[in-house]
Amino acid sequence: MTQTVKLRETAPDAEAQDIRAAMRAIGAAARGAARALADASAETKNRALLAAARLLRERAGEILAANARDLEAGRAKGLTPAIIDRLALDPKRVEAIARGLEVVAALPDPVGKVLATFERPNGLTIERVSTPLGVVGVIYESRPNVTADAAALCLKAGDAVVLRGGSDSFQSSAAIHACLVAGLKEAGLPEAAISRVPFVSREAVGEMLEGLGGALDVIVPRGGKSLVARVQREARVPVFAHLEGIVHVYVDRAADLDKAITLLINSKMRRTGICGAAETLLVDRAAAPTMLAPLVKALLAKGCAVRGDEATRAVDPRVTAASEEDWRTEYLDAIISAKVVDGLDAAIEHIETYGSHHTDSIVTEDRAAAEKFLAKVDSAIVLHNASTQFADGGEFGFGAEIGIATGRMHARGPVGAEQLCTFKYRVRGDGQTRA
Amino acid sequence: MTQTVKLRETAPDAEAQDIRAAMRAIGAAARGAARALADASAETKNRALLAAARLLRERAGEILAANARDLEAGRAKGLTPAIIDRLALDPKRVEAIARGLEVVAALPDPVGKVLATFERPNGLTIERVSTPLGVVGVIYESRPNVTADAAALCLKAGDAVVLRGGSDSFQSSAAIHACLVAGLKEAGLPEAAISRVPFVSREAVGEMLEGLGGALDVIVPRGGKSLVARVQREARVPVFAHLEGIVHVYVDRAADLDKAITLLINSKMRRTGICGAAETLLVDRAAAPTMLAPLVKALLAKGCAVRGDEATRAVDPRVTAASEEDWRTEYLDAIISAKVVDGLDAAIEHIETYGSHHTDSIVTEDRAAAEKFLAKVDSAIVLHNASTQFADGGEFGFGAEIGIATGRMHARGPVGAEQLCTFKYRVRGDGQTRA
Repeated sequence: MTQTVKLRETAPDAEAQDIRAAMRAIGAAARGAARALADASAETKNRALLAAARLLRERAGEILAANARDLEAGRAKGLTPAIIDRLALDPKRVEAIARGLEVVAALPDPVGKVLATFERPNGLTIERVSTPLGVVGVIYESRPNVTADAAALCLKAGDAVVLRGGSDSFQSSAAIHACLVAGLKEAGLPEAAISRVPFVSREAVGEMLEGLGGALDVIVPRGGKSLVARVQREARVPVFAHLEGIVHVYVDRAADLDKAITLLINSKMRRTGICGAAETLLVDRAAAPTMLAPLVKALLAKGCAVRGDEATRAVDPRVTAASEEDWRTEYLDAIISAKVVDGLDAAIEHIETYGSHHTDSIVTEDRAAAEKFLAKVDSAIVLHNASTQFADGGEFGFGAEIGIATGRMHARGPVGAEQLCTFKYRVRGDGQTRA
Repeated sequence: MTQTVKLRETAPDAEAQDIRAAMRAIGAAARGAARALADASAETKNRALLAAARLLRERAGEILAANARDLEAGRAKGLTPAIIDRLALDPKRVEAIARGLEVVAALPDPVGKVLATFERPNGLTIERVSTPLGVVGVIYESRPNVTADAAALCLKAGDAVVLRGGSDSFQSSAAIHACLVAGLKEAGLPEAAISRVPFVSREAVGEMLEGLGGALDVIVPRGGKSLVARVQREARVPVFAHLEGIVHVYVDRAADLDKAITLLINSKMRRTGICGAAETLLVDRAAAPTMLAPLVKALLAKGCAVRGDEATRAVDPRVTAASEEDWRTEYLDAIISAKVVDGLDAAIEHIETYGSHHTDSIVTEDRAAAEKFLAKVDSAIVLHNASTQFADGGEFGFGAEIGIATGRMHARGPVGAEQLCTFKYRVRGDGQTRA
């Protein structure tokens, strides 16, 4: 294992063998650390998190220097300004990372919670108790803070983590990782509990998708759509992810117009590049005569391009024609598609047809309509009279999130420490046998 | 689609194309039915279950006649007596199947339960609510009752199910399935909610393992180890399963000897062919001088062969030598492996090394030892002073089970209606926007 950055698309066989062996060794070490972590008390895990936060502050200079090296290499490589922005750290961002560790330390411990108890007629007591999930693999791109955020949540849940960051943030992630490992050592926890892949060969990702010889229980991809698509397609272990957020705001006939405008603008424009940003506006045909024009003009006034159906185009000449493809498009930009639909049922049908089961909202003062929408729209997060940009683990009170999942198994919506746990059954008897 | 039984290993390309198209159509219909089911009330689902139970009784004669055809074909094919026994129905077994549907109907509805509520400082109310999982694929072998048991649990959970039974029970399963479908019709639910693959080509299984074009959310294999192994190896969708139950009984130094003998005999010998049957006896070295001989002699007296380490062989000349392989073997027969271990920690280490994370038990009057065992043994079910044969959804009070899972994701241990659900977040606001 070496700290040298390698970025070959294909490796000679001998090197591929080395990488496989190195990755399997990382997996085995993480698996061993997971056993030790499963026994660790909440206090011990929190001590490691708080020590790491302290060390991040103490070593902020080193971290920023490492980040400067990444930025220099990135600029030389011609990375886009957007990627450079995601990559860049400053004292405020380092402080936010340290603070994030403290927030996770302050969360209730998710391990050992009695989730259900069954008293059986034969006197057996059966408890369903939360336990760590095991080993989590995280594959991410340029944001160096993911190193600390993902590791902290996994540690809180008693899970070991194998972190594979992108090449662009290689030095920054290594410097942050060093603080996390030093925190583990201070708390007497095994260093392999937070393992980092110390090279960036593509084969390393392939090995993780294969599960590191059975060591990984789940993989979380953090990054662009092509990364997530590859992980979803190729992973041989479960994946917590969302491919995209085709997020809808439906303005019902019983909507309060001012509220609808405020919610729409916040849902679309607060930040356009996040998965909870609205991408499609649906307006009830019964509301269109009074509400469509003000909604569309508010979007245009905020600098949002609108692609609409015929009714929407009639509102303002700046609205361009939406194609079939627009209803399936996650813009992640100041663009929205807009359409008039024949009431609540048609809105639900549109969302089920074109949506991505991520986050969808209804604006209405009609409680029955709201409840129907909340019940029938089959998305991880459904909202009534609230901005879609609340689709976030922090906003849900989870302290942090390792990602948002649109799959239906195990975790759905923001994935926090609780969903990074599994459970087992503890059965206590006094000699009971089965008849 | 045809009712003709085909059992070719490989099919001509044209036929494979037909099967793929037919299987995709079944998947798409089940997916559509799942949407309708998600809206169905508990009463409607229960009405379908109770109608099916009534029809099973009314049509018992037809079902037994269909079963007689299966048995005749099976005997002609030279099926083993064990398979013939699993396949055979009689009026009592048909009544048990009908009764099972009524038990499931009487269970609390698992859908729409508020699993957690978060009140946020900004006034948002966030609820985690249980929802149906979607479409469940069940691949099973010769037991015709699985047709009804699996379908009932899925229907209770609001899931559509695609049932692919084995060729041996083809006619019996078809007759039972007809009752289930008639029950759906009586309740006004779509027939595709309980879909049965109407042919037995191997390619049909392959299509299910591929997920029927995205239609299946999870697959549950019910049958022998080779079936489960194939499903675990090849499935491209999540699987609820256990490959084997290498189940341990650890007799601690503080065990009550009489209790230990009773629990060991029940754990091993009540039924030897089920996954919760004990396969290995571990005896604390400190208990061995007084307990090993009575435990081993009790097993031998019940007709159980014992394969032991040196200490166990010294107890009785009928004990044969255990090989390394024995510690990893699920006998599913009147055979047990037995070993003396250096106390609790060594027992835990042995179980973690050789076990299958299914079900393991400790016999002790020492509460601290018991709690340590329950905490540290990383199995789906851990028991204190209770028979391992309680590893069963019915015994847990789940009414029934679709299987027992040893995976760590979503479901673990007996899988009942509750684990056949997922959840979503319902967020209710009054115009809240994100800062």
